[in-house]
Amino acid sequence: MTEDSIIGKLRRRSPLIGDDCAVIPSPAGQDLLLKADLSIEGVHFTRERSAEEIGARAVARSLSDIAATGGTPLYCLVSMALAPWTDEQWIDGFYRGIYKLLRKAKTSLAGGDISHSGRFFCDVIICGSVAKGRALLRSGARAGDALYVSGPLGGWRNKRSITPRLEFGRKLLGVATACMDISDGLALDLHRLSKASGVSAQLDHLPLLKGATLDQALHDGEDYELLFTAPPRMKAPGFRIGSITKGKPGTVRYSGKVLEPIGYDHAKRMQGRQHS
Amino acid sequence: MTEDSIIGKLRRRSPLIGDDCAVIPSPAGQDLLLKADLSIEGVHFTRERSAEEIGARAVARSLSDIAATGGTPLYCLVSMALAPWTDEQWIDGFYRGIYKLLRKAKTSLAGGDISHSGRFFCDVIICGSVAKGRALLRSGARAGDALYVSGPLGGWRNKRSITPRLEFGRKLLGVATACMDISDGLALDLHRLSKASGVSAQLDHLPLLKGATLDQALHDGEDYELLFTAPPRMKAPGFRIGSITKGKPGTVRYSGKVLEPIGYDHAKRMQGRQHS
Repeated sequence: MTEDSIIGKLRRRSPLIGDDCAVIPSPAGQDLLLKADLSIEGVHFTRERSAEEIGARAVARSLSDIAATGGTPLYCLVSMALAPWTDEQWIDGFYRGIYKLLRKAKTSLAGGDISHSGRFFCDVIICGSVAKGRALLRSGARAGDALYVSGPLGGWRNKRSITPRLEFGRKLLGVATACMDISDGLALDLHRLSKASGVSAQLDHLPLLKGATLDQALHDGEDYELLFTAPPRMKAPGFRIGSITKGKPGTVRYSGKVLEPIGYDHAKRMQGRQHS
Repeated sequence: MTEDSIIGKLRRRSPLIGDDCAVIPSPAGQDLLLKADLSIEGVHFTRERSAEEIGARAVARSLSDIAATGGTPLYCLVSMALAPWTDEQWIDGFYRGIYKLLRKAKTSLAGGDISHSGRFFCDVIICGSVAKGRALLRSGARAGDALYVSGPLGGWRNKRSITPRLEFGRKLLGVATACMDISDGLALDLHRLSKASGVSAQLDHLPLLKGATLDQALHDGEDYELLFTAPPRMKAPGFRIGSITKGKPGTVRYSGKVLEPIGYDHAKRMQGRQHS
């Protein structure tokens, strides 16, 4: 197995791969979306999961960010570091998972980088597009807006696979005033959305996944549902979970009590703090 | 130090950072260029180098690939995994190196991902553009073309910093028939260019960096000079090092002898083969 043999195999399926850069047409009249997401052995997954699942999950994370803007994914790069235990069969499975999600999302694998490391990791980059000036951002929520999620929460321990909410996201164009995906837990991510919008947020009722606790729904990462706001009388899809209020930017209340913005934070982990 | 504090600091300098995706204008009438390059502690660098140098080098690797297409870099994403030893001061230095190269290349930092790992690594993604259909590829070399490099070789041990050949690359538009950058050693990379073009190559004379041996110039990685071909009577910049011939695709000869396509191969490293 050599870099060239891995690239050669991918190239048969993804002809954009193999040059110094991916060269792709620029979509006219659109804004570009660019997103990168890391998946690291021992941090985002363990070897117990199948190679296919690890590949699919790595791609789903980035597609979820594209979904949060209301955009459409177009091209994907995968950078990966092989580990001593990743043999050819494992890599085939990993890419099978990647292609499975990319096919559903009509997205082309266009390149990446290959290196090696003690533990396997990958970085999945998605390039997408959205109508000029229409991308949903975190910063558009206004006091009085209603607050929604696209599906029930508490995913980290209770969901085997991630379904990026691409269609759901596109339906929010012209409806949502702000949107983001929940990757580090509702409490922390809603804090971020409220802070970016200069508002406070009030949570009333949370839809839970089967088997999930309220604490998991508030603080666990990896839900990958969309969190969004819309004007109060606008008809919006999803579950209504609260409202946006005036107040200190970033403050989130649940049943009247202020929630700490605690969730999954990689930089804090490096200072000895544990995943809450 | 938290993810949000790192992102907050970057955002003051790079306002595109901080949403779920970078949302950027799509360049009209251009092809997009997308490239990702990994830099891993213990593989691409050791901690002995300064944080600034490690950041600059990581960006230079990707910019070099954009240079090889004759393109112009526009936006950059940096995904990184913090290690237990990377404190705030180190990260500041790392980004100082990144910004230094991006400023010279008129390229904006637009996003990325932050995670953690036992060893530090980063993935630098550059999005660039080139006039529609004009990108220089590996596959355009024809028998009879002259073969060039943009500068002297043998860089891995003998060069402290990488200067991406962006201006040089743009001068090759309309001149070069094929182009790539030398990242894994001349012998292996010329094998790749010849194979992609369906031709053989003949090396005559190699310009060496001060202190470099012929073996280093042929087989060491990390030269980051441009390797390109041009019609024989076309005036081209750089050093003429040989010519393109008919023959088995991918065969490279030096002084008449066939060179093994040996260089730096990450997948082979994982099977116990050493860096030649």
